Amino acid sequence: MHYRLIIEYDGSDFHGWQVQSGARTVQGTLEDALARLLGHPARAAAAGRTDAGVHASGQVVCFHSQRELPLATVRRALNALTPQDLAIRAVDAVPDDFDPRRAARRRRYVYRIWNRPELSPFWRRYAWHIPWTLDLEAMRRGAAPIVGEHDFTSFRASGCDALHPVRRVLRSDLERRGALVIYSIEATAFLRHMVRNIIGTLVELGSGRRSIDVARLLAARDRMLAAATAPAHGLCLEEICYDERERSDEGGTSDA
Amino acid sequence: MHYRLIIEYDGSDFHGWQVQSGARTVQGTLEDALARLLGHPARAAAAGRTDAGVHASGQVVCFHSQRELPLATVRRALNALTPQDLAIRAVDAVPDDFDPRRAARRRRYVYRIWNRPELSPFWRRYAWHIPWTLDLEAMRRGAAPIVGEHDFTSFRASGCDALHPVRRVLRSDLERRGALVIYSIEATAFLRHMVRNIIGTLVELGSGRRSIDVARLLAARDRMLAAATAPAHGLCLEEICYDERERSDEGGTSDA
Repeated sequence: MHYRLIIEYDGSDFHGWQVQSGARTVQGTLEDALARLLGHPARAAAAGRTDAGVHASGQVVCFHSQRELPLATVRRALNALTPQDLAIRAVDAVPDDFDPRRAARRRRYVYRIWNRPELSPFWRRYAWHIPWTLDLEAMRRGAAPIVGEHDFTSFRASGCDALHPVRRVLRSDLERRGALVIYSIEATAFLRHMVRNIIGTLVELGSGRRSIDVARLLAARDRMLAAATAPAHGLCLEEICYDERERSDEGGTSDA
Repeated sequence: MHYRLIIEYDGSDFHGWQVQSGARTVQGTLEDALARLLGHPARAAAAGRTDAGVHASGQVVCFHSQRELPLATVRRALNALTPQDLAIRAVDAVPDDFDPRRAARRRRYVYRIWNRPELSPFWRRYAWHIPWTLDLEAMRRGAAPIVGEHDFTSFRASGCDALHPVRRVLRSDLERRGALVIYSIEATAFLRHMVRNIIGTLVELGSGRRSIDVARLLAARDRMLAAATAPAHGLCLEEICYDERERSDEGGTSDA
């Protein structure tokens, strides 16, 4: 049986998704729990391989087992077997050839900035602290040209292993909620560090440090022109959408 | 000069407000920073002495010094001298005889419950996890009779050192935001564990475990009739109001 999970994690104490020897990773932690539940080793495949420090509230993960367990049992047991910074929100069964990464049609990330002179004791793990006041309108002018199909070489990390740098962005917008500035971006897929590189540039715009024309920056296809990569802890993988239905924050698949 | 601060803290790693030898407390941490800033020991007096694990987003604290420092400097310096789980949001000057506890006219607390089968990696430190579905209407029926002037002996901790048990509650309401159930209570003052004891009873009501008539429970003036004390980590001291002006979440006193 091929199982699909929607999972959440606080990335603060994980060295990213992918298994690394000697490091606490989300994949490693989940595979330990799977082995205990199933009685055999199982590989967990994620829709998005988040970097160290990046959070997820809607990561999608698949694993395979000959054992056909009730979905509600899988959910309850995995929640009991995983630490408190990792939670399983939903479990369903998918066809054996379902690949959560290839099948994903859209992914949505949120990047949070805490924009007040002093750090927040409550948001310090989940938002990048920018103590000076950001000009939201300048940031919005920079965020708008991101929408559409573009070559994102200017916002691509040097270690990115994607075959081609063109991605289609469906949404790129900013809102302020009290001291939080929240950037939401939805795309068919992302390049490595793409969101954090975009945020680096938007924060430069909002800080009045540089007047960058983002449309021209995209056209230049030159990583050296964009700003430094924003820190990982402001980023959260919120949602992954598949063809068969919309996923929502309210729960997605059922465990019935 | 008599200084007044509005401070925030994540109570997770503090043993409450009050100085205790060998324990990390908010008062001790703040007084260490004050001594370094002022060059002399200074006592920090809080409006509300929060228990171990309780958070604050609007605690008010006063201290005295012969040194007349610019308020913006005090704020910046204290934020630099305190750890990341403690932040100073505002500083102003008050008359020498101002006592933040006696002068407080109203205090507002919020208690958060995370009401979903699985724990939240993001709210685990700030909300009490109740995995079964709570009946919000039953909880509201219990919360309503709390409003008004009552003898709160039934919701008072055994160690409470208040001189009399009558308090006036101005607000006692519940709302659901996604998986969060948020209880807001405002009163002229509180007894020890009063909010956590009320929450313990409201959760019993919402769980259908007992049918308690809260008005009769108050009238009985018997702590043995109410439910167990809810855990500290769901509680947050949000705001303290004084006569001279309203304090708001947006910042209150200025540091100009």
